[in-house]
Amino acid sequence: MNFERFSSRMEQINRIGRREGEGISRLSLTDQDMQARSVLKDIFRSLELEVREDGAGNIWGRRKGTDESLPAVVAGSHIDTVPSGGAYDGTLGVMAAVECVAMMRDENFQNRHPVEIVSFSTEESSRFNAATLGSKTAAGILKASDLSRFADTEGVSFLQALHGRGFYPEELTPLRGETIKAFMELHIEQGPVLERENTNIGIVTLIAAPTRLKVDIQGEAAHSGACPMKYRRDALAAASEFVLAVEQAGRNHSSGKTVATVGKMEVFPGAMNVVPGKVQLFVDIRGIDTSSIQKAHNEIMEALHEICARRGVTHQVEILSQDVPKKLDAHLQDLIENSCRKLGLSCSRMPSGAGHDAMNMAAIAPGGLIFVPCIDGISHDKREDMHPEDMKNGVNVLFECVKALSR
Amino acid sequence: MNFERFSSRMEQINRIGRREGEGISRLSLTDQDMQARSVLKDIFRSLELEVREDGAGNIWGRRKGTDESLPAVVAGSHIDTVPSGGAYDGTLGVMAAVECVAMMRDENFQNRHPVEIVSFSTEESSRFNAATLGSKTAAGILKASDLSRFADTEGVSFLQALHGRGFYPEELTPLRGETIKAFMELHIEQGPVLERENTNIGIVTLIAAPTRLKVDIQGEAAHSGACPMKYRRDALAAASEFVLAVEQAGRNHSSGKTVATVGKMEVFPGAMNVVPGKVQLFVDIRGIDTSSIQKAHNEIMEALHEICARRGVTHQVEILSQDVPKKLDAHLQDLIENSCRKLGLSCSRMPSGAGHDAMNMAAIAPGGLIFVPCIDGISHDKREDMHPEDMKNGVNVLFECVKALSR
Repeated sequence: MNFERFSSRMEQINRIGRREGEGISRLSLTDQDMQARSVLKDIFRSLELEVREDGAGNIWGRRKGTDESLPAVVAGSHIDTVPSGGAYDGTLGVMAAVECVAMMRDENFQNRHPVEIVSFSTEESSRFNAATLGSKTAAGILKASDLSRFADTEGVSFLQALHGRGFYPEELTPLRGETIKAFMELHIEQGPVLERENTNIGIVTLIAAPTRLKVDIQGEAAHSGACPMKYRRDALAAASEFVLAVEQAGRNHSSGKTVATVGKMEVFPGAMNVVPGKVQLFVDIRGIDTSSIQKAHNEIMEALHEICARRGVTHQVEILSQDVPKKLDAHLQDLIENSCRKLGLSCSRMPSGAGHDAMNMAAIAPGGLIFVPCIDGISHDKREDMHPEDMKNGVNVLFECVKALSR
Repeated sequence: MNFERFSSRMEQINRIGRREGEGISRLSLTDQDMQARSVLKDIFRSLELEVREDGAGNIWGRRKGTDESLPAVVAGSHIDTVPSGGAYDGTLGVMAAVECVAMMRDENFQNRHPVEIVSFSTEESSRFNAATLGSKTAAGILKASDLSRFADTEGVSFLQALHGRGFYPEELTPLRGETIKAFMELHIEQGPVLERENTNIGIVTLIAAPTRLKVDIQGEAAHSGACPMKYRRDALAAASEFVLAVEQAGRNHSSGKTVATVGKMEVFPGAMNVVPGKVQLFVDIRGIDTSSIQKAHNEIMEALHEICARRGVTHQVEILSQDVPKKLDAHLQDLIENSCRKLGLSCSRMPSGAGHDAMNMAAIAPGGLIFVPCIDGISHDKREDMHPEDMKNGVNVLFECVKALSR
């Protein structure tokens, strides 16, 4: 690979939305995102790719195959980011695919199968509170009529935002599996496992799907000075016990690779001199084993009932999502492993706790997901960082796979 | 008393800032507060009181005594509210004092001592994050030069806000104790004790002063799916243990009437799919016994150290305030008790967990504080409510006291 060329193209995208000391903010369908899309399309055109955008805002760049009747080998990821995010989550996978095509041109490689690069729209849930919306729509998992129920904090729905940028999902024809030979995504791990285990490449076997709960705990607000401890029904104290119960459930089932998290919690009314009357919190349970996930979920619900009953507070639970883990293609896993072996890289098979566009593409075609280590496991944060060597390894593995698949 | 007259004057004030279903919002020095002040001054004038405002925005209405060389008997409270507050916290005490003067006029009572009604500015901490600023300034506890360090969320300081409304604390001469015979305040209890113990009147013996801590717990943000439980340094899980330790410290020392509360807590970055990296929370410890408060404070700090060390997270603690409980005048307590006995009302002596303007006035003159029950102990909330009988009792007790003191 040409690392200098690759880095300079990464930088062409990543200087958009970057603010000194605050990381990169390129939220879906914002001006920053639109500007980055435009730069990306120019890069695609400079590689003589045939560029098209679909009604969900996904950008496709096609390198013709010597036999255009064959299904395409697709590689890509996304370029939208979380607020104050890093340079690699998503963008690495798109620009790695770009570098693969550039390397094909360097080598004068004649791909029999067409090769497509895709940059999926709206992968991050930061704006519309739901993830991988672009690939879900492309794969036909969501229809145009579903897209109005995802809204940002201003009340603008994903559908409205698409319309505002000239994308019409009503006109989108979902991808047909038979037109795609394989979808390959390179992504940073977003966790600490590869780095801690000193492994170059992660071969993802399966993508965990989150069970997500919204929990409201209702106690009674009271004056923090005037209400004796024995008369309190403190919603925050109850919520605190619950947070620890969620953590405990995750620990109890960690042998089954299940994790459980309270990531978001709000305290009402939230004044220094008021015993909290209400807490709203969100639970995220993920794993690779449906029965382990369900056991953790059950323990969490039992703990909630017990805590609330004992403390005289009430609760309401809404299940926001409850999906099943998505297995990735076994042949593609072997292909990734063979590519690593050929390149002399260590690798290990692992589940992905985070969701990725690959899980939606895997619903219609064979899907492969390659992980590379990120420093200290940090992602979704401005401190997200990578070693250049790991980028090179990732691009090289992706290139070997795409070449083999498109031969 | 004339309950109809009293209620209609309460309503004259309370219709200002009231929104259907959202309670009453009359934050200090806002347009709503200014409008209510103006109505109050008209009411003072209708009772032929001599009206003046001081540089801290406190409003005084003076009924001359037959011997103007004698120190004044002062009664009052405040009319600013918390956001979406109730009708009684503060306003009851001011309008009760107004009714007392009206009753004196009804009875043609000749007060030898001058009688003053005061409506203190900026009692609630909601806007400037510090309570009883008006009475603190009047009593000389705060100087004009101190007032710029209290700022609202827009960055406007209390000093700037006063200037903006034409008040100049630089020109204020602090009250001298020898000009005040006694300060009497009627207030709702803001707690459940009187109601639960079926008592008409609370005679406050002492006002608890809060020790307030700002605590930052720093862990490490991580992806909720990709980071295994064993690698986490979850700031929210640590904070949850700490919230429970604060509650436990309050319970351990409840025999000493100490209470401990986490009322406000924020989780960062606060996303469903991110293990929290940071939590900021505020601890409020109050009591009537300095040694019991200190023991609770020590236990809380020990718990914080232990939790953070065990979980590999760090903490920073800032002590925001650490005051000592303020004893109220014993003779005035007896006077309130005698007044209750005369009126056939049950009463009991109790500490006040909440701070009140009376504690600042008590620093320069004898101070008395009369509590009446509020329904379900609810205050600082739109659901704050009172039984009319309890209002009448409170006004009558205040009247008896003011009459006796001003005779």
